[in-house]
Amino acid sequence: MKNRIITISRECGSGGRTVGRLLAERLNIPCYDQEIIERIAEKTGLAKEYVRETTEYMEHSGWLAGAFIPCDRSGHSMQGDLWSLQKRIIADLARKGPCVIVGRCADFILKDDADLLRVFIHADIDKRVQRVTEVYGEAEESNPRKFIISKDKRREAYYNYYTHQKWGSSDNYDISLNSGTLGIEGCVDILEKMY
Amino acid sequence: MKNRIITISRECGSGGRTVGRLLAERLNIPCYDQEIIERIAEKTGLAKEYVRETTEYMEHSGWLAGAFIPCDRSGHSMQGDLWSLQKRIIADLARKGPCVIVGRCADFILKDDADLLRVFIHADIDKRVQRVTEVYGEAEESNPRKFIISKDKRREAYYNYYTHQKWGSSDNYDISLNSGTLGIEGCVDILEKMY
Repeated sequence: MKNRIITISRECGSGGRTVGRLLAERLNIPCYDQEIIERIAEKTGLAKEYVRETTEYMEHSGWLAGAFIPCDRSGHSMQGDLWSLQKRIIADLARKGPCVIVGRCADFILKDDADLLRVFIHADIDKRVQRVTEVYGEAEESNPRKFIISKDKRREAYYNYYTHQKWGSSDNYDISLNSGTLGIEGCVDILEKMY
Repeated sequence: MKNRIITISRECGSGGRTVGRLLAERLNIPCYDQEIIERIAEKTGLAKEYVRETTEYMEHSGWLAGAFIPCDRSGHSMQGDLWSLQKRIIADLARKGPCVIVGRCADFILKDDADLLRVFIHADIDKRVQRVTEVYGEAEESNPRKFIISKDKRREAYYNYYTHQKWGSSDNYDISLNSGTLGIEGCVDILEKMY
């Protein structure tokens, strides 16, 4: 039998990661996010910060983004290898039992191997700017709006390149929730009841 | 105090109208859809079928759609007048008490005047083709896929023209549900629990 897995995709600043963590706590199942990065870092010897960036974000955005992935002469790229490793790790975690997985294209990676609830958390840009400023402090980013937009564009480029789907398009998800109007706790409530 | 109103926007063939009707039955509140058309027809003396088309669909789609609205010499258009009338009727209905309103840009029209839950119901195109064929019969449309795509494009053109928002963009809604994967009853269950 396939395990019931909740995947959470999210816009930067929407609080999607927090929704995932709180939901997993309420359901008493694991939430994988940091752990995936740690496993990849452990297996490759690469720094966690580097792994975090390279396994969810393209260096550049836009339709030519894929052209900027550094490759060796045989066409092999570090990012491509990390994608393959990430896929294996996510598939392994999903086999262990029900869980929540935040980001990392898990909705795509597991589409045939799990009983998925694919969630997308979003909010309008003003609400996300407000949240990033409150949670991370103004010092973190001098221009949070620019930071958010750039981060989402690079995340979208990564998702679209590796999944051949369109990031954020509602048809890739079973449910999309506006955390800006429903609140983070409101989103967790809805998903808990659904599960 | 503002009334709690559920607005249902939907892709053609997603079953969004049925979700609205079933939800209203369960919550024991009215569902307005046909009634809005009837009221406009009554006030204007226009045929219901004409009203249904003109108050939710542009004749043409695409970014030039607005250029094709027939106007008199003073720049007045029948469709523009019907839009104003539709806005007044929807605002009147929303003042009467809690209700469900299907389509007709109600999410936009009521955004400042009601305690809204803005819902979007969607499904992938194959599921919608299947549903249109099953529910309306093959005889209804010889090419249901083309019919669905054209209808959505003209609905999108109408919505974008009159609301200056982007139809189907998740930020216009509090919750977007995939009826293709959750099922129509599944969507109703979630919304009933939320309300």
